[in-house]
Amino acid sequence: MEILPVALVFFLATIVSTTQGYEPVLTHHIHLLKPKTGGARGSVPGLSCLSWRLAVETNNIINWKTVPAECEGYVGHYMLGHQYRKDSKVITNGAWLYAKSLNLTKDGKNVWVFDIDETTLSNLPYYAVNGFGTELYNATSFDEWVLKGTAPALPESLKLYQKLLTLGVKVVFLTGRGEDKRNVTTTNLKNVGYHTWEKLILKGSAYTGKTSYVYKSAERTKLVKSGFRIIGNAGDQWSDILGTNVGNRTFKLPDPMYYIS
Amino acid sequence: MEILPVALVFFLATIVSTTQGYEPVLTHHIHLLKPKTGGARGSVPGLSCLSWRLAVETNNIINWKTVPAECEGYVGHYMLGHQYRKDSKVITNGAWLYAKSLNLTKDGKNVWVFDIDETTLSNLPYYAVNGFGTELYNATSFDEWVLKGTAPALPESLKLYQKLLTLGVKVVFLTGRGEDKRNVTTTNLKNVGYHTWEKLILKGSAYTGKTSYVYKSAERTKLVKSGFRIIGNAGDQWSDILGTNVGNRTFKLPDPMYYIS
Repeated sequence: MEILPVALVFFLATIVSTTQGYEPVLTHHIHLLKPKTGGARGSVPGLSCLSWRLAVETNNIINWKTVPAECEGYVGHYMLGHQYRKDSKVITNGAWLYAKSLNLTKDGKNVWVFDIDETTLSNLPYYAVNGFGTELYNATSFDEWVLKGTAPALPESLKLYQKLLTLGVKVVFLTGRGEDKRNVTTTNLKNVGYHTWEKLILKGSAYTGKTSYVYKSAERTKLVKSGFRIIGNAGDQWSDILGTNVGNRTFKLPDPMYYIS
Repeated sequence: MEILPVALVFFLATIVSTTQGYEPVLTHHIHLLKPKTGGARGSVPGLSCLSWRLAVETNNIINWKTVPAECEGYVGHYMLGHQYRKDSKVITNGAWLYAKSLNLTKDGKNVWVFDIDETTLSNLPYYAVNGFGTELYNATSFDEWVLKGTAPALPESLKLYQKLLTLGVKVVFLTGRGEDKRNVTTTNLKNVGYHTWEKLILKGSAYTGKTSYVYKSAERTKLVKSGFRIIGNAGDQWSDILGTNVGNRTFKLPDPMYYIS
């Protein structure tokens, strides 16, 4: 472990500092990291975790179910260390430079689409104690976490959100979370600083069994048909930003922990 | 300089080892690196070059003209060091795993589209003495380099090419190089190991002033209309793999040195 637990605790505390009413048992969380990352020290024969992450982020490796076991330590350090934040900042800063360069009409039809999980809200407190994506997705335990409504904001995304509002851009949240999570999601978003939006679109039962790619494309198309202009679209998954009516510019935030098609 | 010039020379020599008749003045090339990277040691205030590269590779930062000056050393080390090769290998390996998983018809209609520059042939010997992308594109000097016909193969792409041929897949090269470079490109490709192809499509005068995105989309559409199935498509630029008829799977190879729209 090159990063001391103390530093991790400090960083995770910083991440969740914008959350209200969230009381993470940080010491417990972080200590679980140690035994799991023991095998990931040094170089991994046959696999560069750095290359794996680049291939994932560039949509070269697709439809993967779990992070390679030997990359748990690498992904954990990335997510809890400075680089994840730095990477997010360069991307959201690029989004802001783009948005403020636009000569926007004042007709209230300009929207920015944000995904939620790993885009506006962070599930890092959950993944930090569940192998950073090396374990198969567990709907039961993940739902339990989501229903707590204590996900912190991604700080750089929150800043982008706030700045977009100053331009008069309306925000649409488009999430793969189900309709049954509308209340907890609303509360969670507001608690961490996302106070207003034009629409919060959750995955309705009509899309059961449909991919996120299909669902999100269909919902964006509805937005456009109802007269909105999607000037920007940010998500951590390629399925957030590929498909139809993706928006004038798209922004792919980092997520080396899971893949959604 | 963390990497010794000797190591750089050795690596560049390895890169060009598949080239026939190429006599690089390596010592001269590499020594030019030193004064240029003097200011890039350590961290750069306000910019993480690693984050910049990720943002570029994920198509978040687009339409850029040059590599940020403070990232010349970083990009140079990346391109000449091990990581560029490792990143390329993970991607081409993924392409191969995909291709060999297919149950291909034997009708001779399955094609794989490869871009040329920084995809099958490397212009690293040129960029290594021209600031690794920190200098504005110079058509005159770049053309001079291309007309030498001594660009080495990208080793991992060459392996992928060779393995695809064993599956009976036909190769189509689709390049932004102009028709005036057909002969030198043909010779260069053959000299470094690309001995056969179905088509070598160069940018004809009909596309003058058109973007690569428009040109390549149009040419891929022609391919599909003439009965070919594009089972895969590899390029170092997003304009190689976005647009129409991009292929069943696309593969984005690394290129932090330049952007083509």
